[in-house]
Amino acid sequence: MSPYLAELIGTAFLIVLGDGVVASVILNKSKGNQGGWIVITLGWGMAVFIGVYATAKYSGAHLNPAVTFSQALQGKFPWEEVPAYVAAQLAGAMLGAFLVWLTYKKHFDETPDADTKLGVFCTIPAIRNPKYNFLTEFIATMVFILAISYITGPTAGIGSLDALPVAFVVLAIGLSLGGPTGYAINPARDLGPRLMHFLLPIPGKRNSDWSYAWIPVLGPLAGAAAAAFLYQYWLH
Amino acid sequence: MSPYLAELIGTAFLIVLGDGVVASVILNKSKGNQGGWIVITLGWGMAVFIGVYATAKYSGAHLNPAVTFSQALQGKFPWEEVPAYVAAQLAGAMLGAFLVWLTYKKHFDETPDADTKLGVFCTIPAIRNPKYNFLTEFIATMVFILAISYITGPTAGIGSLDALPVAFVVLAIGLSLGGPTGYAINPARDLGPRLMHFLLPIPGKRNSDWSYAWIPVLGPLAGAAAAAFLYQYWLH
Amino acid sequence: MSPYLAELIGTAFLIVLGDGVVASVILNKSKGNQGGWIVITLGWGMAVFIGVYATAKYSGAHLNPAVTFSQALQGKFPWEEVPAYVAAQLAGAMLGAFLVWLTYKKHFDETPDADTKLGVFCTIPAIRNPKYNFLTEFIATMVFILAISYITGPTAGIGSLDALPVAFVVLAIGLSLGGPTGYAINPARDLGPRLMHFLLPIPGKRNSDWSYAWIPVLGPLAGAAAAAFLYQYWLH
Amino acid sequence: MSPYLAELIGTAFLIVLGDGVVASVILNKSKGNQGGWIVITLGWGMAVFIGVYATAKYSGAHLNPAVTFSQALQGKFPWEEVPAYVAAQLAGAMLGAFLVWLTYKKHFDETPDADTKLGVFCTIPAIRNPKYNFLTEFIATMVFILAISYITGPTAGIGSLDALPVAFVVLAIGLSLGGPTGYAINPARDLGPRLMHFLLPIPGKRNSDWSYAWIPVLGPLAGAAAAAFLYQYWLH
Repeated sequence: MSPYLAELIGTAFLIVLGDGVVASVILNKSKGNQGGWIVITLGWGMAVFIGVYATAKYSGAHLNPAVTFSQALQGKFPWEEVPAYVAAQLAGAMLGAFLVWLTYKKHFDETPDADTKLGVFCTIPAIRNPKYNFLTEFIATMVFILAISYITGPTAGIGSLDALPVAFVVLAIGLSLGGPTGYAINPARDLGPRLMHFLLPIPGKRNSDWSYAWIPVLGPLAGAAAAAFLYQYWLH
Repeated sequence: MSPYLAELIGTAFLIVLGDGVVASVILNKSKGNQGGWIVITLGWGMAVFIGVYATAKYSGAHLNPAVTFSQALQGKFPWEEVPAYVAAQLAGAMLGAFLVWLTYKKHFDETPDADTKLGVFCTIPAIRNPKYNFLTEFIATMVFILAISYITGPTAGIGSLDALPVAFVVLAIGLSLGGPTGYAINPARDLGPRLMHFLLPIPGKRNSDWSYAWIPVLGPLAGAAAAAFLYQYWLH
Repeated sequence: MSPYLAELIGTAFLIVLGDGVVASVILNKSKGNQGGWIVITLGWGMAVFIGVYATAKYSGAHLNPAVTFSQALQGKFPWEEVPAYVAAQLAGAMLGAFLVWLTYKKHFDETPDADTKLGVFCTIPAIRNPKYNFLTEFIATMVFILAISYITGPTAGIGSLDALPVAFVVLAIGLSLGGPTGYAINPARDLGPRLMHFLLPIPGKRNSDWSYAWIPVLGPLAGAAAAAFLYQYWLH
Repeated sequence: MSPYLAELIGTAFLIVLGDGVVASVILNKSKGNQGGWIVITLGWGMAVFIGVYATAKYSGAHLNPAVTFSQALQGKFPWEEVPAYVAAQLAGAMLGAFLVWLTYKKHFDETPDADTKLGVFCTIPAIRNPKYNFLTEFIATMVFILAISYITGPTAGIGSLDALPVAFVVLAIGLSLGGPTGYAINPARDLGPRLMHFLLPIPGKRNSDWSYAWIPVLGPLAGAAAAAFLYQYWLH
């Protein structure tokens, strides 16, 4: 399997399981409805575990443009490969979101609230405030990428044996820093499914909240850059 | 222990703990009553862990006709062994369901609702719609078998060291894709206990919902075939 | 550290953390109050992990007369050591329960219900029925000891590396088979704290429910014997 | 990275994720609001995992003056290094708490209750009683340090491979013994954020409850001393 296909498949695993757990908790009549924050955060943690475990040996399991960006900034990944990796991640995220829509199709139909439908696909801040929403994504991703840097050490990419620690990092970030914005910490995780929400013929859908879309893209990239800089020059 | 006995014992572990956690959460007066989706999904995950851990070295710990089918399709398991494995899995699932009934006997008596009693044994869709219920089981099992394929790699069967990753896969599927149908993803898990519901003298029971029974059998088998095909020819 | 002291300390870890989590969930004004079944079952699982991890190399980490009994029946442990091991386990369980009482003293004072106070120490069935309560403890302990037998294999005792799988077994049993009786599955876990409830000057306490006390002792021992027999002669 | 910087960074990880999960659960409008005790205790457990995993090879991952104190008492850590380690831990805890405040700034603004705001930073007892609050912190920390001593054995400090067992110990203590005081079990975890609460310009804040501040400092130190003494002279 080529690294690009691996990134696509791994990110599809991440999103079908990650957006899937959100669907299960927030869509009407789902058996996971009202399952709570523990279900959502553990679901995303396990989604990361499986995505990383499946693809580590093929592509280094970035599954996240912020990871790819920080690896390139740290000199562990060639810059010329970045566009193809990011494109594969976006495509995988869109595929994952599409599978969630198919899986939960009848539950979308039973959920009249258009914000809830959008919330299955992409993040929506609890309190809308561009400055602080950006800051939250910046801090959460900085902590995330810094923790990943200590886990992988000098090696490039993420290995199979790192799958569990990395999953625990995402679980921890979700539990602890996910409250204000729903923790995108991954531009592909947010933008790919948002595009799918825009494209799919979902009955009763609202607009895809494009005015917010830059925050879960630029916030994580800025946080990743800060973490890469801190780790490279000071904190190791 | 012969591989057939191992499959029987392993699937009995899976079902006594898996149907057991459903009983604990949905039957009246149980201490686990209203424990929520996290209890159910973690219970099934731990059930898989123990079933696999106990039997991996004896039989490769399939515990699921969809796994056996996908292993045979991938050339990792002899077709002539399939019927005996599946029969052992069904028998083990029936034994497990019987033990759950004994364990929770007084709680069945205290639960008047006949749908709840049936729900301890087999899956019932949240929204009954054959086409989409089939699609949900198809997608969930495809994701499940594909993830298992990456975990076991070229080896046949599931090893002891795979018990935890495989348990995490089932935990993830439950959290994320289990909302619409209650995630059979295993024909024996559904059909064996359903047969036991049919056979046992449960006071106040309803019919065993045979009109739905084909979906958690054929949906998982079709999903397993799709995963085996994708993995073999394209995605590794 | 002698094996007897190790069994005492390990069982004290088990009970201070196990009875502790029950206290946290059921006593008034505790921060864990209403934490639910997931908190209780995970708390007991982690209690087992720590008790086993701490003492495996000193005593084989039985921490449970049912484990000692099944090891002796399987010829892995000398019968003449059984009384000292069981005495150490009971003493450790009493010490653990005493520490829980000290830790939660003010919360006992704030909890008027005498059944709740007793419930911190020992198990109380959800539906009182000696025959079925015994059967539940028998089945749960049989599944528990059988699973432990597969984990430890031909080795005597429980090793440090078995701490996590064994903790997962207890977590699974609690989630799945704990609903009817609160899963003693360990005579020392029930009898030691019950004795402590009897001895301690707890304001407003009820009697120590001695009429039920034989069930969480004999049920687990019978289940352990059944599991040892099944494993030795048939199921391995 | 110097050991002092490592202690600062590791304790900052611990507190940004630990105080972060408290913020997520108790502050108004957070997506984790009302997530319950399982979210808080798992969040702190994962916070410990990441703090230890990131810094074990640089500093031995104490992240807690009670750990440093017990290591020094056991002759595993030079006394002359204690002040610098403790200072680094306090500084890291303050940094972590500051990041939580930035991350949840708008949610602090939406939470009028001053006790809740304080509760994000430091522990507040469920029932205020200096004697028993001290006793609870003493017992919880004694159990904590004793368990850590068995995990690390004769080695100095905490290693990367100990990160998961140590995280499970903190998870267990939180679930089981955290009910009365909210389990500081770490003077830096309480005092550092309390200082930050005192210093930060938080609108509508109350006083920083300095009359209680000595308990989560001296209780843990006394418990650590007891554990070190028990382990060294008797219990190994």
